[in-house]
Amino acid sequence: MRVGVIGGGQLARMMIPAAIELGVELRVLAEAEGMSAALAADRVGDYTDVETVLAFGRDVDVVTFDHEHVPQHVLRALVDAGVPVHPGPDALRFAQDKLLMRERLSELGLPVPDWARVETVAELDDFIADHGGEAVVKTPRGGYDGKGVRVVRSGAEAAEWFAVGDGGGGALLVEELVDFRRELAQLVARRPSGEIVAWPVVETVQVGGVCSEVIAPAPRSPGRLADVAADVAITIAEGLGVTGVLAVELFETTDDRVLVNELAMRPHNSGHWTMDGSTTSQFEQHLRAVLDLPLGGTGCHERWSVMVNVLGGPVSDALTDRYPEALVGHPTVKLHNYGKAPRPGRKVGHVTATGDDLDEVAYEARAAAAVFQD
Amino acid sequence: MRVGVIGGGQLARMMIPAAIELGVELRVLAEAEGMSAALAADRVGDYTDVETVLAFGRDVDVVTFDHEHVPQHVLRALVDAGVPVHPGPDALRFAQDKLLMRERLSELGLPVPDWARVETVAELDDFIADHGGEAVVKTPRGGYDGKGVRVVRSGAEAAEWFAVGDGGGGALLVEELVDFRRELAQLVARRPSGEIVAWPVVETVQVGGVCSEVIAPAPRSPGRLADVAADVAITIAEGLGVTGVLAVELFETTDDRVLVNELAMRPHNSGHWTMDGSTTSQFEQHLRAVLDLPLGGTGCHERWSVMVNVLGGPVSDALTDRYPEALVGHPTVKLHNYGKAPRPGRKVGHVTATGDDLDEVAYEARAAAAVFQD
Repeated sequence: MRVGVIGGGQLARMMIPAAIELGVELRVLAEAEGMSAALAADRVGDYTDVETVLAFGRDVDVVTFDHEHVPQHVLRALVDAGVPVHPGPDALRFAQDKLLMRERLSELGLPVPDWARVETVAELDDFIADHGGEAVVKTPRGGYDGKGVRVVRSGAEAAEWFAVGDGGGGALLVEELVDFRRELAQLVARRPSGEIVAWPVVETVQVGGVCSEVIAPAPRSPGRLADVAADVAITIAEGLGVTGVLAVELFETTDDRVLVNELAMRPHNSGHWTMDGSTTSQFEQHLRAVLDLPLGGTGCHERWSVMVNVLGGPVSDALTDRYPEALVGHPTVKLHNYGKAPRPGRKVGHVTATGDDLDEVAYEARAAAAVFQD
Repeated sequence: MRVGVIGGGQLARMMIPAAIELGVELRVLAEAEGMSAALAADRVGDYTDVETVLAFGRDVDVVTFDHEHVPQHVLRALVDAGVPVHPGPDALRFAQDKLLMRERLSELGLPVPDWARVETVAELDDFIADHGGEAVVKTPRGGYDGKGVRVVRSGAEAAEWFAVGDGGGGALLVEELVDFRRELAQLVARRPSGEIVAWPVVETVQVGGVCSEVIAPAPRSPGRLADVAADVAITIAEGLGVTGVLAVELFETTDDRVLVNELAMRPHNSGHWTMDGSTTSQFEQHLRAVLDLPLGGTGCHERWSVMVNVLGGPVSDALTDRYPEALVGHPTVKLHNYGKAPRPGRKVGHVTATGDDLDEVAYEARAAAAVFQD
């Protein structure tokens, strides 16, 4: 069984251990030498080039992804050549274009923030005026980790994004500024033949638009909330035809609604806790799903898991230089190093702690992660 | 951090996921192309050749092992060249030569079966006569998985082993045939700076001299038994200067004693359950130990873990062809495929189940493993 992964980042890297255990041959098409998933890098090449991707796809049983940036015409060339692609282009376009995503989720009757497609500053001003004088503007394509997202009080503040167009025909997505209590994420996995499983809904903490911490399961979540979150994600996975892992980022509003924020059709930062906290990690599950194998259990080893990202990493030395300090005081935390050079704000690793007492678990994970920050 | 592993079998393979997570660069000196640990195979070469091993050792921070067969003169050449070797030659010789091991354990006052060094058929006959007419004869070197071990009722039955000599000066090890209730194994890890940790003692089930199943922790084990097993292994690790993981195979006798059977100075089949059942897997712990990093927790995720070996594997098709059947009925078992061609009796993989009810856990693991046997 050969799985080809387009993209050589840490998500591809974290698929390697799962592939080794399952006896799956993982082949990565990396963007450059020395990337996070270099150990499994079968070749280096441009994922926007049809010939490069076709040559890569012909050598594997299924193609999947470390990111959602492979252009539609490249994906369709793979499908036309008979290469199984999971998630497929029909699903991926909703992860690639936020306007398409909002349209489709609205059609499916799913709870989303008020939104509109705006093509001019004037249209944007109208939306802002109708929504209390503030709104969130998003470029339909290319945004991640807070990039391509801006809170504005006037259309002029996004004027240059209209000018650039950004492949969306000049249109932007504008959404109400949601008054939320906290952010949640719901992870599910679906195989082509239809089986679908859900992990417990988790709470995610963002700093500056970047995920800093995940608590699994989300504390203070009545059964109803957990059921709604799972139902929303399952409806999306089925409605959009997603195969593999799907992460649905959610807002829990101050008036007790759950609204869909963003989608990711691949393993996701909000699911890293599953590597150490769940029967089946999201990386193993993704491989099983794209290979159309029966899916694994999504129960938890311990009552609580807390995952804390290592953002940026140390400036003065290497991550590994801090291991003695990080490990000696925290023998039960699990450390994950992505093999990437430290750079401000960059995700270079994460730590996960698990246990019965949430305060203790969160303290352990935060304290161990803090050792790696200057 | 670069760790060099001599030997490309499944133990080296199972170190790769742990190395990826820790951000350790693992380099394997494999015996041949296409071995179980091929993904990390830095080169292929003869581990009995000094120049090959020296060239390999100079490129890494520490050398460790997939097996105990590297000759002493090769190990000493590495040490003389300044390459850290863990476990070192002074410890490894006790794993390489069962006569030396028995002598040293007796010196340390550890509980061992009655034993003798015998150089002739007549000496062996005398030992047999003194021990109820039966004894176990072992070649001091090269035995594993039941090979080089024979139960005899007369010295003549081992005559050809005296003739071969087998590098032991013609001497053989003879031991009393222990009347045991069951077999146990105690796994510990020790770093060069002295820290040592122990996992719970486990019960191992052998069929034809080959491990078929491990139950962790060993059922019906009073605290006293668990303490004795851990004390024995810690005394051995410290007394023999073992670094890395040490597995001590034990007999629990019908008169309630614990006797040391065999030693392995590396990750061991009796510890595979730790990959899915313990806070720290034996493979991660081995890497931490040989790098002299603080050791990880040895607690259990669930009350029980049962590991069942896949021996031989299917004849008519590939292991992966049986995945749909194995996985659909057993969503919580963890499957480990060593990437080896099926062959009668060969260890080609294992499955582990964990949970609160031992009968259920054992049933799950055995049923999933049985799918892979014809």
